[in-house]
Amino acid sequence: MLACKQMSSPNQAVPAVNRQITLAARPVGMPKPTDFKLVDAQMPQPGAGEVLVRALYLSVDPVMRGRIGGQAGQARSVQPGEVMAGPVVGSVLESNDPRIAKDDVVEGMLGWQEYAVAQAKSLRKVDPRVAPISTSLYVLGMPGLTAYFGLLDICKPQPGETVVVSAAAGAVGSLVGQIARIKRCRAIGIAGSNEKIRFITRELGFDGGFNYKEGDYQARLKELCPNGVDIYFDNVGGPVTDAVIRAINTRARIAVCGQISQYNSERPEMGPRWLGQLVAKQAKAEGFLVQQFADRHEEGLKQLATWLREKKLKYHEDIVDGLENAPVAFIGMLEGKNIGKRLVRVTQSNL
Amino acid sequence: MLACKQMSSPNQAVPAVNRQITLAARPVGMPKPTDFKLVDAQMPQPGAGEVLVRALYLSVDPVMRGRIGGQAGQARSVQPGEVMAGPVVGSVLESNDPRIAKDDVVEGMLGWQEYAVAQAKSLRKVDPRVAPISTSLYVLGMPGLTAYFGLLDICKPQPGETVVVSAAAGAVGSLVGQIARIKRCRAIGIAGSNEKIRFITRELGFDGGFNYKEGDYQARLKELCPNGVDIYFDNVGGPVTDAVIRAINTRARIAVCGQISQYNSERPEMGPRWLGQLVAKQAKAEGFLVQQFADRHEEGLKQLATWLREKKLKYHEDIVDGLENAPVAFIGMLEGKNIGKRLVRVTQSNL
Repeated sequence: MLACKQMSSPNQAVPAVNRQITLAARPVGMPKPTDFKLVDAQMPQPGAGEVLVRALYLSVDPVMRGRIGGQAGQARSVQPGEVMAGPVVGSVLESNDPRIAKDDVVEGMLGWQEYAVAQAKSLRKVDPRVAPISTSLYVLGMPGLTAYFGLLDICKPQPGETVVVSAAAGAVGSLVGQIARIKRCRAIGIAGSNEKIRFITRELGFDGGFNYKEGDYQARLKELCPNGVDIYFDNVGGPVTDAVIRAINTRARIAVCGQISQYNSERPEMGPRWLGQLVAKQAKAEGFLVQQFADRHEEGLKQLATWLREKKLKYHEDIVDGLENAPVAFIGMLEGKNIGKRLVRVTQSNL
Repeated sequence: MLACKQMSSPNQAVPAVNRQITLAARPVGMPKPTDFKLVDAQMPQPGAGEVLVRALYLSVDPVMRGRIGGQAGQARSVQPGEVMAGPVVGSVLESNDPRIAKDDVVEGMLGWQEYAVAQAKSLRKVDPRVAPISTSLYVLGMPGLTAYFGLLDICKPQPGETVVVSAAAGAVGSLVGQIARIKRCRAIGIAGSNEKIRFITRELGFDGGFNYKEGDYQARLKELCPNGVDIYFDNVGGPVTDAVIRAINTRARIAVCGQISQYNSERPEMGPRWLGQLVAKQAKAEGFLVQQFADRHEEGLKQLATWLREKKLKYHEDIVDGLENAPVAFIGMLEGKNIGKRLVRVTQSNL
C-alpha cells in the first residue's frame, strides 16, 4: 500500500507561487471568460489542524452558477476578487492533523487553485484503490450522491415505473437513469444532442431518450412513456419540464435537482402555471440539495462503490486540461457541451 | 332517540315529480346561470340494496368547477344533460338495505336534486346528535377532511411554525388556520375582502391575515410572517401563490389543495417559474385529493368531531335557500362571495 501511494504521488517540488482563478465580476446572463481571472498568489502555509493539498482535479458543476450570480438562496456566494469555490480532489503535501497523512488523497471544497490549505476535518479521504480518484468528484462524490438520494429518497422508485430524467447525459442525469434501471424501472432520458442520446441509450443502457432540440416534446414523451411518467428527475426546468409535467401519472414524484435552463436568466422566465396538475394527479414536486442527506453520505458512497465494482454503473469523464482552462470548461458545461462529467485536470498524476 | 328522529323528520308526502338541476352546457370561463337548467324528472324508485333520499342540504364546492368544464384529470365529468354532481345530506324515505333505516340521515354524492336513489353502501350515516347535519358537508365532511389531512399529513406542522393559507375564509381555509392554531402554529390567512380578514382573525382566532385585493403581497407577508413561511396551504394559485413561494423557509411544505384563481381560465395562465426556489429551499409542493385518505376518513372525522365538541373549531355557514338557487350559489362561491361554507338548503327541516 505504501508502495502504491509513493508510485502515484504527484508531489514534485512545491513552487513559491499558487495559481488561482478568481471571480473578476458577477456574470450577467451566461458567464464569459472575462468574468474570471488567473492570478498568482502566495503559497499558503498550513496551521494547526490544517493540511496543504495539491489539486489534481477540480469539478465544474451547474450549482456553481448560483454561487457567483448572487441569486437568493443558493449556497454561499463567491465575491468578486475571491477564488472560485468548488470541489477538488488532490494529494496531501503537508499535514498538521493526525487524521490525514502526507500523500493521502482527499476531496473537499478547495476552490479553483493549484494549492489549498484546509481544515483536516473538512476533507474526505479518498481511497485510490476503489476507483480512479477523479470519481470522487463524480460517481463517488457529489453528483453520485445527488443522483442516489434524489432518486431513491425523494422519488422512491418501484419496479416497473417509468423514470424520466432531464440533462440525462450530464454527471447527475447519467447516473439517475442507471440507478433507475438497477431498481428495475424504465429509464428515459432527455438531452440536447443526438450524440448524447446515443450515449445514454447505447453506452449506459437507458431504455430510450430524445433530443429536446428536435421535434415535439409531448409526442416524444407519449411515444417513449406509453404508461405515462411516474418519476421525473429534473435538472433543467423550463419548457422541457412543462412537457413532462403534462405527462405525469397519478401519485407521480418530481425530484427538482436543478434548473439549468434558468440559471442565466436575468429575471424569472414566465411559463404556464401547472400547480393544478399536481392536485389532479396527487403528485409532488420536491426540491433538494445533497447536503440535506449529509448524515447518510457514507451509506450512499458505499452503495455507489458496490454498483461500480459490479459494473452496474458506468461513467464517462469529459476532461479539460489545465487550471487556466477552468472558466471555459465551466462555461461549456453550462452550455451543455459535455457528455458525462466535466472535470478539469489541474495536475498530471497517475492516480 | 326514536322520538328525536320522528320530531326532526322532514318527510312529508312524496310528490310525483323530482326537481333537478342539470348541466345545460359546458361553461366557458366563469359559469353563467344559463349553463344550468331546472328540470322536472320522474320520482326515482329504489331497487334492491338501494335507498331513496330526500335532500336537505347540498354543497357547492370549488372542485365542482373541474367536473363540469372537462379539464383533464379532475374527478369524473358531468355531461351536459346530466344532473349536477355534488355532495348532499338528506333523510331516508325508503330503504331496501338492512344497513340503513327509514329516517336515517345520510351523506353522499347525490347531486343537485330533491330526491335521489343510491346504493346504500355508497352513503355515510350521519348522527344528528353530534352536530347539525349541515356540518356533514363542512367540518364533519369533505372540507373538514381536506383541511385535516392536507395540513397534518402533507405538511406535518410543528409547534411555532408559520402556516399561511389562501382562501382563508372559505370552507377549507377557515378550518386549516384553526387546526394550525390547535397544533400551536402561527396561522396567517389570505382572503379577498376586509370583512373576510376580520372574520378569520376576530371570529376564528387566526394570528393575522391580509386582503389580497389591497396592497403589496410581498410586504404584507413579510410583516405578518417575520420568521418566514414554513407551511403554505394553497387553495387559489396565481399571483398570491407566487408571492408566498418567494417567502418560504428552508424545508417548507406546500400543500396544493386547489387553484380556484385558475379554474375559469380557458388556457393556462402564465406565471414566473419558481422551481429553482424549491431547490434552494429544499422545499416541496404536493397536490392532494381528500379521496387518497379514504381509509382514514373515520379517524379524521372522529378528531374533527372532538375538536368541535371542545369548541376548538368554529364554523360559519353561508346558506342559500332553494334548489333553484344552486347555480347562483355555486357561481357566487366561485366569485368569492361566501364567508365560511356555502350550502344550499333544499328542504326545510329541524335537523
